[in-house]
Amino acid sequence: MSSSDGAGVPGPAFVLVNPQMGENIGAAMRVMANFGLDDLRIHAPRDGWPNERAEAMSAGSPLYASARVSDDLDDALEGCTVLYATTARPRGMVKPVMTAREAMAEARGLIAAGQKPGFLFGAEKSGLPNELVARSRAILTLPVDPGFASLNLAMAVGVLAHEWRAGDPPPQEFKPLEEAADAVALHRMYEHFEDELERAGFFFPLEKKPLMTQNLRNIFARAGLTEQEVRTFRGAIKALTIGRGKARVVRD
Amino acid sequence: MSSSDGAGVPGPAFVLVNPQMGENIGAAMRVMANFGLDDLRIHAPRDGWPNERAEAMSAGSPLYASARVSDDLDDALEGCTVLYATTARPRGMVKPVMTAREAMAEARGLIAAGQKPGFLFGAEKSGLPNELVARSRAILTLPVDPGFASLNLAMAVGVLAHEWRAGDPPPQEFKPLEEAADAVALHRMYEHFEDELERAGFFFPLEKKPLMTQNLRNIFARAGLTEQEVRTFRGAIKALTIGRGKARVVRD
Repeated sequence: MSSSDGAGVPGPAFVLVNPQMGENIGAAMRVMANFGLDDLRIHAPRDGWPNERAEAMSAGSPLYASARVSDDLDDALEGCTVLYATTARPRGMVKPVMTAREAMAEARGLIAAGQKPGFLFGAEKSGLPNELVARSRAILTLPVDPGFASLNLAMAVGVLAHEWRAGDPPPQEFKPLEEAADAVALHRMYEHFEDELERAGFFFPLEKKPLMTQNLRNIFARAGLTEQEVRTFRGAIKALTIGRGKARVVRD
Repeated sequence: MSSSDGAGVPGPAFVLVNPQMGENIGAAMRVMANFGLDDLRIHAPRDGWPNERAEAMSAGSPLYASARVSDDLDDALEGCTVLYATTARPRGMVKPVMTAREAMAEARGLIAAGQKPGFLFGAEKSGLPNELVARSRAILTLPVDPGFASLNLAMAVGVLAHEWRAGDPPPQEFKPLEEAADAVALHRMYEHFEDELERAGFFFPLEKKPLMTQNLRNIFARAGLTEQEVRTFRGAIKALTIGRGKARVVRD
């Protein structure tokens, strides 16, 4: 079984039907592995198999070795219980039409219920044959601009592969390591800053000080400082004031 | 101003910083146009400009001509009020970390408030310089598999470009043209089917008929038939029964 993430949830199958260009097959293999998908089936690739261009573009993806390549469509669809037909053209068939997000959300639910969804992608020029669209539970179409609708095959695979993971939170290693400053430390910093500004004659005329203070504090409140950043900023204030005279700022 | 859809909503800017391969620049141009984005800036492309490989891979995208190519970073960032840094590596900076979906949702809100978000993409090998990450409001990172994290540059652009439109409903032309059958027409079809099955001796033993009927009706209820499909299916029943004798089905 395929495994899509650390929790070992199986992923959907992606099926490339009669893909033409090895470059696209390889790029699809690369991006599927990027997003943790490992069940790729390739039905009747135009240029046969193995394919050097596919291998080069796969950039070391494990899917180059693991993909199931077959001229037998039954083999390519084996085990898939629900098919989604990706197509850029309406086919005049009565069938639910879904966005990538909707279809992948449904596929997640089906996987949780023990099913195996398969996403079908047609050939670069011709798309999926109507016969396969008819066998699919739903049409999946991407929101392309009608004036420039020709989406690269690997790009379509990439968009779908990303949708498989798009709801995941950012990875753990991106969590900030530093502690956020508390309101008291921030208030001390505000007072330090404002005391030095007052000494420098910045609050002029003085009746404007409350509003000017409020505007300055608002900047830092929005930024969300860490304890370290509070120390750094207080150090910057200190550096600016060392050796500085108490002369009033001259204004034109 | 850029226009992302028929309603003329401006889109975000995408900024490629020091991109290396013309193929990736061209593929990025193609997929941005696919998803209705038209504000591309290219800062200091490694192989200069114009670039034949970029042009070939752009597949006629209008962005090949309209992209702003410049060695001056200020020029590349002109007018962008909020920057998002796409990066695969944590930078040890304290900064909000967002998924593509979260960042694009925020960007939509900013655009509605008259701002211009810019999404920054670094070079293929090295990614964005820390200096540009530091200037960004947030880090945007894609949920790639840590074991195979190297995402192609154009693919990253494509995933983000799709997110710009991912919440859109399927295009109008995919709306089915046929009327759904109403419950009365469906019930007539059920009765027609079941009458012929009864004549054929299908309901055996007879006490199972209610359950068998229920199971058969359930298939069609799930499928959601149109008026035309009801007519077609009734025609199929009729065809199967024409000339057929009334002999009871022989069971072993």
